[in-house]
Amino acid sequence: MKRTLFALAATLVATSALAQPVRPLTPGAIIARAPSADFQAVDPDDLLIIDLFKGGRIVIQLSPEFAPAHAANIRALARAQWYDGLFIERVQDDYVTQWGDPSGKKALPKGVAERPPAEYDRAAEGLKPYILPWKDTYAEQTGFAGPWPMASADGRAWMTHCYGMVGVGRDLSPDTGTGGELYAVIGHAPRALDRNIALVGRVLEGMDILASFPRGEGELGMYTKPAQFISIRRVRLASELTGPDRPYFEVMKTASPSFKAWSDLKANRKDDFFIHPAGAVDVCTILPPLRKARTK
Amino acid sequence: MKRTLFALAATLVATSALAQPVRPLTPGAIIARAPSADFQAVDPDDLLIIDLFKGGRIVIQLSPEFAPAHAANIRALARAQWYDGLFIERVQDDYVTQWGDPSGKKALPKGVAERPPAEYDRAAEGLKPYILPWKDTYAEQTGFAGPWPMASADGRAWMTHCYGMVGVGRDLSPDTGTGGELYAVIGHAPRALDRNIALVGRVLEGMDILASFPRGEGELGMYTKPAQFISIRRVRLASELTGPDRPYFEVMKTASPSFKAWSDLKANRKDDFFIHPAGAVDVCTILPPLRKARTK
Repeated sequence: MKRTLFALAATLVATSALAQPVRPLTPGAIIARAPSADFQAVDPDDLLIIDLFKGGRIVIQLSPEFAPAHAANIRALARAQWYDGLFIERVQDDYVTQWGDPSGKKALPKGVAERPPAEYDRAAEGLKPYILPWKDTYAEQTGFAGPWPMASADGRAWMTHCYGMVGVGRDLSPDTGTGGELYAVIGHAPRALDRNIALVGRVLEGMDILASFPRGEGELGMYTKPAQFISIRRVRLASELTGPDRPYFEVMKTASPSFKAWSDLKANRKDDFFIHPAGAVDVCTILPPLRKARTK
Repeated sequence: MKRTLFALAATLVATSALAQPVRPLTPGAIIARAPSADFQAVDPDDLLIIDLFKGGRIVIQLSPEFAPAHAANIRALARAQWYDGLFIERVQDDYVTQWGDPSGKKALPKGVAERPPAEYDRAAEGLKPYILPWKDTYAEQTGFAGPWPMASADGRAWMTHCYGMVGVGRDLSPDTGTGGELYAVIGHAPRALDRNIALVGRVLEGMDILASFPRGEGELGMYTKPAQFISIRRVRLASELTGPDRPYFEVMKTASPSFKAWSDLKANRKDDFFIHPAGAVDVCTILPPLRKARTK
């Protein structure tokens, strides 16, 4: 018997699961049948689109709820077309892919803060998060505030460094980074970075691209030869794009019944493949499901 | 100021940290100054070497302590040169890279068990693990049994699906997989697979290769065109190789003072970069450090 498809049962397409009610419900089926009311359209001013010269698109949802000054900087840099022609310059295995200005000398446009505040955490008050019932190694509580994976303790809350989360490269403290250097997590969640660096969003599309670049051979995964740099054609906000160029995304509302059903099932798989339900799931394995919305 | 090197302080090379005693100790410095007695040479019968046709080597340490029947199968398959000419056939982003026989029809050599037992966990007794003092989302306890990251509860122990761990592809239960199909974790630890599938080891070299293949576009990340398959030139045990072809590895003993100092520091970084120590670290972020040993 062919053994290539381990976890086939884990991801059976929704339709077949629904057509055969004797099979246990799958996470995919819950996403597929979730009503539109359980999804939230992403604001086009919060969607950052990176188009590479060699083809390939990366789409990031910004998180002004946690890092308003850094999100404002990034929007201003995009509108000034400041990132255009810069590079992916660092790929460190099981850690991050980073892009920006390898020279570190490109002048910032007007209106971009040189020294934004340290938006590493914020007051927990006002977030109304969906709190997960499971233990976390790093924090008292974890959960989701809107679309954002977060942890909290002592009245403070912060986003968590999960696979696909985007942060702001910085130098040593008190530098907080301008947003001119950004990175995406491409490995196991480096949660020790939480509260030490500003997270500004999540990659909604293009992780398959960001995570599969050749690893850099220099210190910290830096590319050491200019020929290795991967050129960025342009970076824009979705609100600046029109027609078929403009992407639309919807993220499942974490306060919705669908999200609760989906995350609970992810924590308690028992079916033809999963014989031992985990009984829990960590915050980084349940980033909210997405839909590429087809209409405005 | 150049902002490309976030986390530079996190990985300062050992020598510079030692030369400047005013700087806080780094994890790298602890590894660099660890005595030889704190490392364990890997048995050459436990080292599986995969050489790719297009170049590139992957080295895996097998874990007979947790999966003796599957490790025996894999050794027998390597000695029979059964894997030679097979393929990397599946790369699913944030999950696994898998290799084996895409046809699923290649006959197994004599001496390979068709239906090994379900080595998904084992008795905790006899392991003498180094138990971590921090919470885990999925288990009562986590720690290391020799070189192996593990979790335990109710007298049972099992290896954990961390980045770089290697498992045995299987079909639906009660199939446990023969070892003819293997996968390596290339994303955030999919711990829900723990106790549902046999883990058989850890990639010691070549994760940069396994994690950077193009993602497959088929269901579960399968490559859909034969041209996408990545050819395996040969798979051998280190004990079958001689001369410069034969690799030697040492893994830090998890019962050593060096490992305790290193993992404790990883949990409590406070230096020019880390302003907020995490106070904990999860089992998957502290797989034992390695040395490529230069002599027998």
